[in-house]
Amino acid sequence: MRRKGLASMAVQTVASTSPTDSPTDSPAGSSGSAEPSLGAAVALSCRECGTRTALGPHFVCLECFGPLEVAYELPAGDPAGLRERIEAGPASMWRYAPLLPVPADVAAKPNLNPGFTPLVQADRLAAELGVTGGLYVKDDSGNPTHSFKDRPVAIALEAARAFGLTTLSCSSTGNLAGAVGAAASRAGLRSCVFIPDGLEQSKVVMAAVYGGDLVAIDGTYDDVNRFCSELIGDPLGEGWGFTNVNLRPFYAEGSKTLAYEICEQLGWRLPDQIVIPVASGCQLVKIDKGLRELIALGLVEEKPYRIFAAQAEGCAPVSRAFKDGSDVRPVKRPDTIAKSLAIGDPADGPYVIDICKRTGGAVDDVDDAQIVDSIRLLARTEGVFAETAGGVTLGVTRKLIASGALDPALSTVVLNTGDGLKTLDAVAPTARPSAVIAPSLAAFRDAGLA
Amino acid sequence: MRRKGLASMAVQTVASTSPTDSPTDSPAGSSGSAEPSLGAAVALSCRECGTRTALGPHFVCLECFGPLEVAYELPAGDPAGLRERIEAGPASMWRYAPLLPVPADVAAKPNLNPGFTPLVQADRLAAELGVTGGLYVKDDSGNPTHSFKDRPVAIALEAARAFGLTTLSCSSTGNLAGAVGAAASRAGLRSCVFIPDGLEQSKVVMAAVYGGDLVAIDGTYDDVNRFCSELIGDPLGEGWGFTNVNLRPFYAEGSKTLAYEICEQLGWRLPDQIVIPVASGCQLVKIDKGLRELIALGLVEEKPYRIFAAQAEGCAPVSRAFKDGSDVRPVKRPDTIAKSLAIGDPADGPYVIDICKRTGGAVDDVDDAQIVDSIRLLARTEGVFAETAGGVTLGVTRKLIASGALDPALSTVVLNTGDGLKTLDAVAPTARPSAVIAPSLAAFRDAGLA
Repeated sequence: MRRKGLASMAVQTVASTSPTDSPTDSPAGSSGSAEPSLGAAVALSCRECGTRTALGPHFVCLECFGPLEVAYELPAGDPAGLRERIEAGPASMWRYAPLLPVPADVAAKPNLNPGFTPLVQADRLAAELGVTGGLYVKDDSGNPTHSFKDRPVAIALEAARAFGLTTLSCSSTGNLAGAVGAAASRAGLRSCVFIPDGLEQSKVVMAAVYGGDLVAIDGTYDDVNRFCSELIGDPLGEGWGFTNVNLRPFYAEGSKTLAYEICEQLGWRLPDQIVIPVASGCQLVKIDKGLRELIALGLVEEKPYRIFAAQAEGCAPVSRAFKDGSDVRPVKRPDTIAKSLAIGDPADGPYVIDICKRTGGAVDDVDDAQIVDSIRLLARTEGVFAETAGGVTLGVTRKLIASGALDPALSTVVLNTGDGLKTLDAVAPTARPSAVIAPSLAAFRDAGLA
Repeated sequence: MRRKGLASMAVQTVASTSPTDSPTDSPAGSSGSAEPSLGAAVALSCRECGTRTALGPHFVCLECFGPLEVAYELPAGDPAGLRERIEAGPASMWRYAPLLPVPADVAAKPNLNPGFTPLVQADRLAAELGVTGGLYVKDDSGNPTHSFKDRPVAIALEAARAFGLTTLSCSSTGNLAGAVGAAASRAGLRSCVFIPDGLEQSKVVMAAVYGGDLVAIDGTYDDVNRFCSELIGDPLGEGWGFTNVNLRPFYAEGSKTLAYEICEQLGWRLPDQIVIPVASGCQLVKIDKGLRELIALGLVEEKPYRIFAAQAEGCAPVSRAFKDGSDVRPVKRPDTIAKSLAIGDPADGPYVIDICKRTGGAVDDVDDAQIVDSIRLLARTEGVFAETAGGVTLGVTRKLIASGALDPALSTVVLNTGDGLKTLDAVAPTARPSAVIAPSLAAFRDAGLA
């Protein structure tokens, strides 16, 4: 079902004469409607063979078993008008509603309104790394549940509503579980989420606190994922929307908004280089798709950009395949502190390699010590406390600069996809008080910190 | 130094003929300049006797020992133009720069750009509580370090830069320490922060991870605070800006932005009722000040509003004084899971009581069990995971509705000032997996969760 060539682009554009004359302005479909209205989305389309099927909770092409993606009629023909319309929108990912599979009134529905997170101009970090072309950290810890997962979940939620699904579910390494639990609570849906047993305490608490069901599975993330696929085919799972399984085509589109925001925040310009962490690889694939959509719609000027992928050494199937020139071979027992990246059998791994090769980027990995060191470097220079996945991305960025693969004279965006508060253990041994003293000037003087 | 009457309002307005013709458009002062330019701020003014003194790192009136506040020449005379100018500003608290003691170009300087956090329309929570007049949660966990403290710190940082101070410091119950550490790192200042020993692990890690010095003091928060006041008077503390001591007049203004945002997000309307947690009381006093400024400037229509204050039973000096009609008597050994509210000797306690009485509000408190229950209620109904302080505020809201003090037919805003990830222990015993199972449909069926 996966091929090595450049994936065809499931984007259709349609000319419109004015900013208000676009498909997304049609009335929103009601929950459970036979013909759900999901904005500019018109069908599902196979990424491999291009076969189209109607919008619905489906994720595999019945012709070739390739992955399904959302196909659009996007509002082309008036880029200036579209830019203006976006800029006048809400300070959330819904400013890009015309480019997403969501009803036009999405911002008015109860949801977490994620996105439009800060793009931090990281001058102090740039100085330490010798980056002269401009260095930016896209800090997605600013989302409601403090990871980028709020983006795809917000779109999956709209799909669930449109298809009349009543339970929101997922397999998760932690961040997604919290995002699904919170989104379901806001929307008034039931949630039941699945995680591998033994995750970080903060992620377990965050997955459970929203009051839905949380089921820990005795196994790896890949075991959890396989179990969820089974559940979908079983009557037990009827009426369930698994954000990252049967709602995956919709869910996956959420990551496009990272590309949109980065470019808008750079003044509607493409960055030269982007470094993206890879778990399933879905985020990287969709950021690339988002960039190409912006070019196709004329929202940014076309120019070359390079995409780099970052993995943790303890679970680096894509990085190894890229370096060896081999197929992506699953990692059976991931062993890394970057648990949110510990997906041993990444569904989009081959596509990640395609994209990095096509754009002139690369894939690399770093070990646990480098992850922790990079978390601390980012915190010390920019006041951003990243999750271990953010440490992976910055660590790989440093490695790629050192190797010459990443050009420090070009503008570079590094993604921080999650929050350090969720992976406290990584830095807890070293992030401690400099001193414990009595409340007196003498004691403070003796501590030698003045 | 404290009096019981209505505090006089240190607000001056000056007519301006156009939105661009205001004092904040003057060039920003350079660091260490003899005449620092802090936007519309023109002086420090004693809240008690009104004596004015030049802008500087001072916090006590030399005439009467009353607290100093920032006095402004605010851009009056064109409310429609000012509203428009604000709405066209950045999606951060800097959209209100014309009303703050900051240089006009503040958003362009390296800082955390906090604020403009979500005002959640809490319909599901309202239904549970029987609130019919509209219920909103102002969710300040969306700030960069996930508490409202990023707001006052961002303003204190500008003051520190203007006065040429080189070390940013504070006494903190945890949230402030993280906010100061992060802000100093972003700005490239040294930081040295002081906390009572024994805080939540996540707050300790977050205070230390930004690489500044973190000093744990063997004592309560009030001991830490007294120590910091000593340090300011000592040569050891020269060149230090203590955000909540010698920079307090500036720092405190940060909380005004909560009032601005709430009203703008309600469509430039005052809410009928606001429930605010009380630690030092500073936040509540400044939210009231912010509301009165909006009225004075014509940005909102004047109407009555009620302010309610929330404390934890284990540290409720203001609540007790309000109920007894007595003076605020310090609590020697605070004992509550709401550690961020555990200030036994609240500097602004008497002012809090004044304001609640003046506006027809009230002060109340809840115990630890009620705090936890309210954290869970908010998470379950709205997908917002609040810190213990947020549990206090919602818990008191419920109590005030039950007692009839808070009118459920009026519009009500409840503040969540921090993030549940920082006070995990409060909910960890109950926020756990519903089941741990093998990865099989049979095991899932047996768990009875389908």
